[in-house]
Amino acid sequence: GFAKIDSGRLERTGIPEVIYSAGKTKEQVQQIAERMYKTGIDILATRASEEIFQGVTQVVPGAVFNPQAKTIVYHHKTNKLTKDYIAVVAAGTSDLPVAEEAVETANFLGNKVERIYDVGVAGIHRLFSRMDLIRGARVIIVVAGMEGALPSVIGGLVDKPVIAVPTSVGYGANLGGVTALLAMLNSCAAGISVVNIDNGFGAACQAGLINKLK
Amino acid sequence: GFAKIDSGRLERTGIPEVIYSAGKTKEQVQQIAERMYKTGIDILATRASEEIFQGVTQVVPGAVFNPQAKTIVYHHKTNKLTKDYIAVVAAGTSDLPVAEEAVETANFLGNKVERIYDVGVAGIHRLFSRMDLIRGARVIIVVAGMEGALPSVIGGLVDKPVIAVPTSVGYGANLGGVTALLAMLNSCAAGISVVNIDNGFGAACQAGLINKLK
Amino acid sequence: GFAKIDSGRLERTGIPEVIYSAGKTKEQVQQIAERMYKTGIDILATRASEEIFQGVTQVVPGAVFNPQAKTIVYHHKTNKLTKDYIAVVAAGTSDLPVAEEAVETANFLGNKVERIYDVGVAGIHRLFSRMDLIRGARVIIVVAGMEGALPSVIGGLVDKPVIAVPTSVGYGANLGGVTALLAMLNSCAAGISVVNIDNGFGAACQAGLINKLK
Amino acid sequence: GFAKIDSGRLERTGIPEVIYSAGKTKEQVQQIAERMYKTGIDILATRASEEIFQGVTQVVPGAVFNPQAKTIVYHHKTNKLTKDYIAVVAAGTSDLPVAEEAVETANFLGNKVERIYDVGVAGIHRLFSRMDLIRGARVIIVVAGMEGALPSVIGGLVDKPVIAVPTSVGYGANLGGVTALLAMLNSCAAGISVVNIDNGFGAACQAGLINKLK
Amino acid sequence: GFAKIDSGRLERTGIPEVIYSAGKTKEQVQQIAERMYKTGIDILATRASEEIFQGVTQVVPGAVFNPQAKTIVYHHKTNKLTKDYIAVVAAGTSDLPVAEEAVETANFLGNKVERIYDVGVAGIHRLFSRMDLIRGARVIIVVAGMEGALPSVIGGLVDKPVIAVPTSVGYGANLGGVTALLAMLNSCAAGISVVNIDNGFGAACQAGLINKLK
Amino acid sequence: GFAKIDSGRLERTGIPEVIYSAGKTKEQVQQIAERMYKTGIDILATRASEEIFQGVTQVVPGAVFNPQAKTIVYHHKTNKLTKDYIAVVAAGTSDLPVAEEAVETANFLGNKVERIYDVGVAGIHRLFSRMDLIRGARVIIVVAGMEGALPSVIGGLVDKPVIAVPTSVGYGANLGGVTALLAMLNSCAAGISVVNIDNGFGAACQAGLINKLK
Amino acid sequence: GFAKIDSGRLERTGIPEVIYSAGKTKEQVQQIAERMYKTGIDILATRASEEIFQGVTQVVPGAVFNPQAKTIVYHHKTNKLTKDYIAVVAAGTSDLPVAEEAVETANFLGNKVERIYDVGVAGIHRLFSRMDLIRGARVIIVVAGMEGALPSVIGGLVDKPVIAVPTSVGYGANLGGVTALLAMLNSCAAGISVVNIDNGFGAACQAGLINKLK
Amino acid sequence: GFAKIDSGRLERTGIPEVIYSAGKTKEQVQQIAERMYKTGIDILATRASEEIFQGVTQVVPGAVFNPQAKTIVYHHKTNKLTKDYIAVVAAGTSDLPVAEEAVETANFLGNKVERIYDVGVAGIHRLFSRMDLIRGARVIIVVAGMEGALPSVIGGLVDKPVIAVPTSVGYGANLGGVTALLAMLNSCAAGISVVNIDNGFGAACQAGLINKLK
Ligand SMILES: Nc1ncnc2c1ncn2[C@@H]1O[C@H](COP(=O)(O)O)[C@@H](O)[C@H]1O
Ligand SMILES: Nc1ncnc2c1ncn2[C@@H]1O[C@H](COP(=O)(O)O)[C@@H](O)[C@H]1O
Ligand SMILES: Nc1ncnc2c1ncn2[C@@H]1O[C@H](COP(=O)(O)O)[C@@H](O)[C@H]1O
Ligand SMILES: Nc1ncnc2c1ncn2[C@@H]1O[C@H](COP(=O)(O)O)[C@@H](O)[C@H]1O
Ligand SMILES: [Mg+2]
Ligand SMILES: [Mg+2]
Ligand SMILES: [Mg+2]
Ligand SMILES: [Mg+2]
Ligand SMILES: [Mg+2]
Ligand SMILES: [Mg+2]
Ligand SMILES: [Mg+2]
Ligand SMILES: [Mg+2]
Repeated sequence: GFAKIDSGRLERTGIPEVIYSAGKTKEQVQQIAERMYKTGIDILATRASEEIFQGVTQVVPGAVFNPQAKTIVYHHKTNKLTKDYIAVVAAGTSDLPVAEEAVETANFLGNKVERIYDVGVAGIHRLFSRMDLIRGARVIIVVAGMEGALPSVIGGLVDKPVIAVPTSVGYGANLGGVTALLAMLNSCAAGISVVNIDNGFGAACQAGLINKLK
Repeated sequence: GFAKIDSGRLERTGIPEVIYSAGKTKEQVQQIAERMYKTGIDILATRASEEIFQGVTQVVPGAVFNPQAKTIVYHHKTNKLTKDYIAVVAAGTSDLPVAEEAVETANFLGNKVERIYDVGVAGIHRLFSRMDLIRGARVIIVVAGMEGALPSVIGGLVDKPVIAVPTSVGYGANLGGVTALLAMLNSCAAGISVVNIDNGFGAACQAGLINKLK
Repeated sequence: GFAKIDSGRLERTGIPEVIYSAGKTKEQVQQIAERMYKTGIDILATRASEEIFQGVTQVVPGAVFNPQAKTIVYHHKTNKLTKDYIAVVAAGTSDLPVAEEAVETANFLGNKVERIYDVGVAGIHRLFSRMDLIRGARVIIVVAGMEGALPSVIGGLVDKPVIAVPTSVGYGANLGGVTALLAMLNSCAAGISVVNIDNGFGAACQAGLINKLK
Repeated sequence: GFAKIDSGRLERTGIPEVIYSAGKTKEQVQQIAERMYKTGIDILATRASEEIFQGVTQVVPGAVFNPQAKTIVYHHKTNKLTKDYIAVVAAGTSDLPVAEEAVETANFLGNKVERIYDVGVAGIHRLFSRMDLIRGARVIIVVAGMEGALPSVIGGLVDKPVIAVPTSVGYGANLGGVTALLAMLNSCAAGISVVNIDNGFGAACQAGLINKLK
Repeated sequence: GFAKIDSGRLERTGIPEVIYSAGKTKEQVQQIAERMYKTGIDILATRASEEIFQGVTQVVPGAVFNPQAKTIVYHHKTNKLTKDYIAVVAAGTSDLPVAEEAVETANFLGNKVERIYDVGVAGIHRLFSRMDLIRGARVIIVVAGMEGALPSVIGGLVDKPVIAVPTSVGYGANLGGVTALLAMLNSCAAGISVVNIDNGFGAACQAGLINKLK
Repeated sequence: GFAKIDSGRLERTGIPEVIYSAGKTKEQVQQIAERMYKTGIDILATRASEEIFQGVTQVVPGAVFNPQAKTIVYHHKTNKLTKDYIAVVAAGTSDLPVAEEAVETANFLGNKVERIYDVGVAGIHRLFSRMDLIRGARVIIVVAGMEGALPSVIGGLVDKPVIAVPTSVGYGANLGGVTALLAMLNSCAAGISVVNIDNGFGAACQAGLINKLK
Repeated sequence: GFAKIDSGRLERTGIPEVIYSAGKTKEQVQQIAERMYKTGIDILATRASEEIFQGVTQVVPGAVFNPQAKTIVYHHKTNKLTKDYIAVVAAGTSDLPVAEEAVETANFLGNKVERIYDVGVAGIHRLFSRMDLIRGARVIIVVAGMEGALPSVIGGLVDKPVIAVPTSVGYGANLGGVTALLAMLNSCAAGISVVNIDNGFGAACQAGLINKLK
Repeated sequence: GFAKIDSGRLERTGIPEVIYSAGKTKEQVQQIAERMYKTGIDILATRASEEIFQGVTQVVPGAVFNPQAKTIVYHHKTNKLTKDYIAVVAAGTSDLPVAEEAVETANFLGNKVERIYDVGVAGIHRLFSRMDLIRGARVIIVVAGMEGALPSVIGGLVDKPVIAVPTSVGYGANLGGVTALLAMLNSCAAGISVVNIDNGFGAACQAGLINKLK
């Protein structure tokens, strides 16, 4: 086959191989998914279109598609979640695809997740009414586009690690998400780190590693 | 002389000629200031060093230096201020030179000013205790460096025009203030506009024009 | 529903929630518009396609589409406009979509508007014959692409606040509007502030706040 | 005083106020340090020169200077460290100032630290001989300049969160650290997040929050 | 015809004219290929679509298409390859189109090639098991996207020239391949040089010149 | 010697070798100037400091220094100027060093020059009172920093070629002159071309070639 | 109508109004062309598609389309050309659309033109065999993409003004033509100026003004 | 000591450890050099100041300083050079420091070198008179700043690998060497690869590996 599954990766890094569907054909994703299905490996595919899901569902009965997250998930056994949870916070409705990618990935890796959505800084009272839920998390993922200000505000209010995810939401001087990325890297609040633009997957991987620390 | 004073500018634009001292020698600023002094024109010099002030004070007795703002000011008659005020809000202590440049300029143009300093988003409770004073202004200047998030938070809480001033405060991915500038241009709060990096002067000019609208 | 309407926003910020249609499906915009219509909230949708308008018009009879501005507007009662007006000045014909977005937004917020179009600096006599109308405004929005020079010229001729809107009009070294944006931020005329590239909406929001100052 | 100490910050965010000495005069740092000393607050000053240390030591007897890290530290009581440790890994000798800033900050926050230095990818055998110590950490800080490749290699070998710190070490197309920053954000290994260029302090803050999770 | 074949180029530079199909129509490529076929010149077309191949195959019977490399090749006589080989190393499966363009070009120029694929730094053990084959090459082409770290690791392990090819694989802060390009230019390993993003062709040209040095 | 004088250059290109003093020591410039003096070649040195001039004047008696332009000039015979003139227009006083470099270079190449200074767009009436002199030129050099708008305004008013010179004057988002450069390249007026930032020398070279066309 | 024809422009600037078709609909271009046709104004439309030409030809019988240049031209009387010619030099076949736009524009403005194509620096002997024709021109337009080196080579060989036109031809690090633009601005040959990326029209406008100087 | 010498590097990579003096103190370089001297390791220090050399010469008698290259060299035995040579070609006099760094490094690694200097494209006849020497080399290093055109011209004339070194020579839009770097990466001549800005050292390392291939 064209791609070898790095089966030792889960043990080595705490994160199994995951199918990144962007730039792959329906047939390619289908074939990889089928192989994983038959070998008894749990499946997560990110950046998957509706069409790709149609291909996968033929060979992996029971696969679940989240159209907003663009993820396909399949577990051979019931997925047992942690008791501690990861908070996934999103600023605006346009940031939800990235937030949902983080949620699906975190769940897939066995983490309980709480969603706190539509709490952007332009109406900051919405955030304050949700702070208890945010503060109760073990680690917090904050997803925001445009000026990327939300992680700073949250970072100043919690004593938990914050992983900031810039999104490409916006236009003009948002430069495809670079503006939010730069803003987050310059946060005046301590305890914040940043992942690539639109990388909900990467944020959830790190959050999962943190959440599972004993 | 090497520079002609555009004396019609005040009438034409509501803002008189001002001396921008950066890149001028002590002698040049001194000479311009002296000419203005003798012609009965009020004087504002920005980006002035201590050394330049020493030169000006010799020819303009009574000139006042604000070392943080790096401004020199002289009025022939007492400067009468408006009853409505401009709020000048600053995020961190490193942003004060820019904020003070705005304050001095606004005062020079005849505007009453209220300072609200050290209310950055990393400790947002500090901002909330000052919101009444901010809301009472006719127009609000918000000065911030690093991730430039403060104008968005304030913009979502007031019904007054907000003029955002990015500062070059920070390092690395702050890119000399470009990050704060981009963030402010992408604010998710409506009613915000932006001036050049470190341009406290320009913000105060526009705020002054707004404050004096009848 | 997928998006909560921030109904307190009008009171808090002077600007109500507005539907930003870019990246939303026809069904999503239709659904939000219908909810607003039924709750008695006035409707403005920006960046709306002809197709989206077809959807909205089914549930909001009487909604009006401006195809150049790409806006949909609906008022429950007659929209009462201010006596003072906002001047919306545009450099070239390609800048008109952005200018019209500003006009529609300003009108929606209750402001009288005067249009001054096709007065770019390459034929500056066209501008001079319109200066009286421009000078008569309470606040001036100037829309320009390419080298973005028009706000500087106007800023040097008026004593009113100027809000500059760079557009993405041009090619090559215009860098999708970044060139006009940078030029406007560096204007040698005082009293100018800037909003994001193509952001006619944002300029009108700030202009509206200024125009309604008592 | 010119700066208010945000005394609630430690409780709120798990990280106390710290003195960022860059852009402050010797007198300013001295004054802040003295106030903290007298109020019984532990002191960490970063980006401090030898000269600034001379000022601080006069008012804070017992303050300790790390000239490579450019930090000044003072504890009122013995600093009790965690049993779990943070690994601080550095690629080259020129990256040590940033690595040491991370070490000093992590120690100041009460974390045990292990240093693993001079293990850059150009001689990757040096890294492999230290992998046991790295794998034993609860969280790993990886400091690298130039092409910023080290976090990817380590990220592929461990199941612990990796915080990557790009440094400004290099010349030409390193663009003052932007190259290493971009590379780290695009790491092909999962479980990595990134902080600002040269921001050893920020990496240690987040690592400290993670290390103290129960 | 619209394009003159620079027939002296092979003798002058060691590399014959090659058809760069991007931006050319099916008819244009077909016509050039036919002319070369009839004049007895060997044919390599890069960046060719399936459709362009259909056009060429009508006039050049026996032309061979590599759909991954997007190359069309035709030799009038059997292509004799060197005994020494060029190693073409690729980090991930998404980098294969660029790697295959290098392979096809190197073969076309008469060089034996060994492929070493899917050995990216996120699972570095995969690389080590192939090092003997890599070390045996006369010159090594290393193709990688995202953070572009692979050339540095290989460069530190071999005493042969390494030509690094950044790919545009990735998203967000990968900036269309600029991140990998910058990283490779800043490699901490000596003996590495770099070609343009996605330029497998160019890397193979230089590698071919090196491999044929006596 | 360390540098060979390309003596055929004048004949070949219409422009003789000129000494670019930046990055050269006093001794190096002195030595080149002396050699030119003794060989009977006229001398122009650009970017020369006062100190370098002191060196040159020892070996080239009669050499003339323009401290604003930072040029040193020496002619063996009286320099005969053209009857047609080049207009050198400058926006602000800070642009004068670049404008003067253009003037000195144009004069050195035998061109008559008219200076039109301090006519920036923020007070555009100043420009109109000088338009006759500008229109009378054979070719026009326009020097401007900040938003670089002046060439567009002039280009729309004349039927002569305009060569635009961006300057590095400004701060923040002027990006060291890149903003003015980009603006000028995007001029909406036709008939304008652009040279490098601060390159008064280059503008004068091209203007000289144009002015001498018969 | 939606666009006013600036009929004084020809007299004022030596260059008449021209239709820039990009971003205009077939109907819009058709309508403007018809109005010009009926008023007796000569027509040049640039960036016109085949489809737009079909629209124009219905209302302007005799209009001529150059599909490579993407220009439509119509003259009411025979177009009389100058005796002196403009040389239009192009590096590669992919640069021809831009070169042809320059040729069509120059012709439209009444200038004789000589084409010198496919003389890029990778096979520099091709250039030398054409130098006499190039040297005979009054002004030279040089069109090149990729590394943009051709204007420097030509600039060092002629005593005529050179106008350099960067093209967007290339991929990866060519950054859409920015690389060629920057290279041309930094030419080590004197007497060169530059226009925007792909701006064959602008180069021809300036060249026309120069060619018609008496 | 603060830095471990990677003594296996020579055998592993064909290139020994070299002292990069930038950012190191006189004492640090002195100490490393002394240790190498005493252990019998040959010494090359790059980016060394006159002052650093004074330090080294005290502990390494016989060390040789090249002030233009800023290199210090010491061989324990006579350095035997190859019979085949590397050509080091430089465009302008300002590029010589980088060219000389390449020469010194290549010599240090045992390669014979031929210098071909001051052959920039602005006077291309100078290049042609040296082409035989260039063509006779086994591998060619081409050093150029500004528009970086020289490698393309040479690459089109030889059948040997060309390694291009951009320099930071220039100003304004040269962007500290980025312009030359980008230009070289986009060369229209095949067989060229590129190293970092000003990296004469790196070019010589790769050229040395190529030159020693059997
Ligand atoms: N054209 C526009 N440009 C920028 N912001 C807009 C625009 N139109 C609407 N908005 C803002 O976007 C908000 C709605 O965003 P959303 O919740 O994503 O629909 C509105 O309340 C406005 O503040
Ligand atoms: N994939 C490629 N990337 C870069 N250059 C190429 C590529 N394929 C062919 N070329 C070059 O482009 C030339 C043909 O260009 P053209 O005359 O436009 O067809 C060839 O002779 C090669 O030097
Ligand atoms: N101010 C300047 N800006 C750009 N190029 C210049 C300038 N002054 C001189 N030159 C060019 O630089 C060449 C000399 O370069 P060099 O050999 O380094 O002294 C001259 O022949 C001119 O072509
Ligand atoms: N001029 C130079 N440019 C780039 N890398 C260099 C240079 N000189 C030495 N190096 C590299 O830097 C390494 C030493 O780095 P360090 O351990 O920081 O002294 C050497 O082994 C070389 O690989
Ligand atoms: Mg909303
Ligand atoms: Mg002035
Ligand atoms: Mg504080
Ligand atoms: Mg894989
Ligand atoms: Mg028009
Ligand atoms: Mg060709
Ligand atoms: Mg070392
Ligand atoms: Mg020279």
